[in-house]
Amino acid sequence: MEKGLRVLGAFSAGQQFMTLREIAEACEIDKSAAQRFTHTLSQLGYLEKCGDTKRFSLGKKVLELSFNYLRANTLVEAASPVLLDLQRTCGERVNLSLFDDTSIIYAVRQLSKREYYFSSLIGRRMPVYCSSGGRVMLGLLDDEHVDAILDRCDLKPVTPKTIFERPKVKAKIAEARTKGYALTVEETVMGELVVAGAITAADGRPAGAVHIAGSLGNWTPLQFEKKFGPLASQTAHALSRKHG
Amino acid sequence: MEKGLRVLGAFSAGQQFMTLREIAEACEIDKSAAQRFTHTLSQLGYLEKCGDTKRFSLGKKVLELSFNYLRANTLVEAASPVLLDLQRTCGERVNLSLFDDTSIIYAVRQLSKREYYFSSLIGRRMPVYCSSGGRVMLGLLDDEHVDAILDRCDLKPVTPKTIFERPKVKAKIAEARTKGYALTVEETVMGELVVAGAITAADGRPAGAVHIAGSLGNWTPLQFEKKFGPLASQTAHALSRKHG
Repeated sequence: MEKGLRVLGAFSAGQQFMTLREIAEACEIDKSAAQRFTHTLSQLGYLEKCGDTKRFSLGKKVLELSFNYLRANTLVEAASPVLLDLQRTCGERVNLSLFDDTSIIYAVRQLSKREYYFSSLIGRRMPVYCSSGGRVMLGLLDDEHVDAILDRCDLKPVTPKTIFERPKVKAKIAEARTKGYALTVEETVMGELVVAGAITAADGRPAGAVHIAGSLGNWTPLQFEKKFGPLASQTAHALSRKHG
Repeated sequence: MEKGLRVLGAFSAGQQFMTLREIAEACEIDKSAAQRFTHTLSQLGYLEKCGDTKRFSLGKKVLELSFNYLRANTLVEAASPVLLDLQRTCGERVNLSLFDDTSIIYAVRQLSKREYYFSSLIGRRMPVYCSSGGRVMLGLLDDEHVDAILDRCDLKPVTPKTIFERPKVKAKIAEARTKGYALTVEETVMGELVVAGAITAADGRPAGAVHIAGSLGNWTPLQFEKKFGPLASQTAHALSRKHG
């Protein structure tokens, strides 16, 4: 089964279509195994075969799995209307991310204006060390725990502005602890600033983060932080109590 | 592998947590097989184990699959900003659904106000015969094809107002063909009206639908249809050309 799931994972590079041969190569399995897996996955709706091109793409069934995840997640459910209100209040893009060890993963997205399609698509991962949500959530953990996570991260820049050096990242985490929110400026997307507040699970560990994202074309970092930092923090705090 | 995927599918009843025994029963596999599958699925992140309760839930990895599906889907990408604009214009909830034989499946969601969390969550399926999006998409197919799909549907009411009887459904599909959009009133959710226009793929077959959903508290069916029917139809038509 692990190999079969590797076939689904092979579509993670953003490739919409893959031939049997490409799948076999990407998964390091032989062609007859690839044939067997793609057949089963297609029958179940996890893959779709593209007409007569003999190429495969992910199937609509994968959306159903994410529906089942999201509908059962009480934090995501509680956050959904709150984020809608927050988006109304601040007019910027707001997201909810979930904590997943070395990365955060987006789970709620409320667009504010035409913008990069991918930037906060549900299910997108971002490294924990360079995202505002990741840093503010790491701030809830003790130093030993933070170090253990950073040990498992491949610390590298995402943009030319990414702060990824370990001592600097730790200083940013300490800053987020003090302020109650984290601010990143062009660290994941050029031209973009993001503030985030951390949502605490009932056991005190990080559960998720509320993000507010704006453009450097509209805001200086100082203005943005002053206006939205406390708002992200308060919203996250309110969701912590709701969830806890 | 089919059995392993059945384990993921077992969480479709909206149950957040399942024990090993419940999983084994739901999938009709023995407990040792369930143990093996849940172990592998947990290691890969498709399942999460809940602390010390020994219960399982879907893992965040399933969100990643849906991300890979959505990021690669050119129709969903093209529709995303268009639906945002449409939501601004009409102030109601707008969604994009995709055609999947006997059902439609939601792929883009733009909330307008606090509302039912589930109602248009991405990945949610609705029967093709009683949803406005389903009916308007069926209208693109010839009668023979429509009949074949309806043969495979389990025609039954979703609400007390659902029109599900075969001749009536076919009349509704014919009406949608003439008007260029379909209207449903309380057929899937009580108190709700929905209009939808169909997006055509390059080969002329149904690809998706643009939905606009409102409340009977704010609109009479006639007002709603007049105001939003043509808008849903035009938006879908514009996306058809974009996509085709």
